[in-house]
Amino acid sequence: MTLILGIDPGSRITGYGVVRDTGRHCEYVASGCIRTGDGALAERLQLVFRGVAQVIETYGPMTMGIEQVFMARNADSALKLGQARGAAIVAGAEAGLEISEYTATQVKQAVVGTGAAKKEQVQMMVMQLLKLVQKPQIDASDALAIALCHAHHRQSLIPHGLAGAKRRGGRLRL
Amino acid sequence: MTLILGIDPGSRITGYGVVRDTGRHCEYVASGCIRTGDGALAERLQLVFRGVAQVIETYGPMTMGIEQVFMARNADSALKLGQARGAAIVAGAEAGLEISEYTATQVKQAVVGTGAAKKEQVQMMVMQLLKLVQKPQIDASDALAIALCHAHHRQSLIPHGLAGAKRRGGRLRL
Repeated sequence: MTLILGIDPGSRITGYGVVRDTGRHCEYVASGCIRTGDGALAERLQLVFRGVAQVIETYGPMTMGIEQVFMARNADSALKLGQARGAAIVAGAEAGLEISEYTATQVKQAVVGTGAAKKEQVQMMVMQLLKLVQKPQIDASDALAIALCHAHHRQSLIPHGLAGAKRRGGRLRL
Repeated sequence: MTLILGIDPGSRITGYGVVRDTGRHCEYVASGCIRTGDGALAERLQLVFRGVAQVIETYGPMTMGIEQVFMARNADSALKLGQARGAAIVAGAEAGLEISEYTATQVKQAVVGTGAAKKEQVQMMVMQLLKLVQKPQIDASDALAIALCHAHHRQSLIPHGLAGAKRRGGRLRL
């Protein structure tokens, strides 16, 4: 049983999601958003750093997945996203978590079964896989999707005989 | 007398410079580079975070200046720079430093007297202002220039009668 943290960093809202990987399937533990408000840059980055550190302290995940960003709208938004991402990654690293990065395509592939899935499909599958009755806020849902993707890829590292039965068509079993 | 930290963040090398602002002029205290090597992203960002934290612990600056970036070559390099910048800013904020941002033009204006100054002119003026006999590595020199710019702008906040004699033509007095 492993607790897995997924982080979807953003300059204004950083989503987090914690799932429990039982080895058979993933269960929902927690999710939410760290909102950074309109303060000075250093204050906002500190909120991301402390927010992620607080989530780690509260739930005690062993490992963390974070979305790898390839394209941003422009250099300015990439810089802002990078700053939030740096603050979140440092919080994970300082807490001793191993950190893996996944592309949006890998996340969609793991959760929906196709890298071309739409945002709404990802959110719906997150709800189904984790048996959620309420739709989570989109950043929290994206963070849960990253956590599920990380669980999936960790399982892929388990020898085939043990893990083979758990996956079908490249996505997590319901 | 105030100790001032200047940080020039980069995805591979983060320069730092510490100067002592006596109220009359600035004296050199320390400078150097935090090299992040070729490890995993989380490891490199942790090196920036811990490196800046270590400099703060060693020299005890009260305040920190960091270069504000407006244009990066492209979104990818902006993201990488943003991550290092986020790690450095969080280290300063966690140590309780007040943090100010300066554009490259502000730094050049404060140190050389013109925002159109070349990199070599900035480096030469840093050496003159701080009475350095050896040319510092370029990232360290840039960080010292940021620290000098921060000292200059802090002085600007002092009432005119006290600070007026110290500045001439918009740049620091030798």
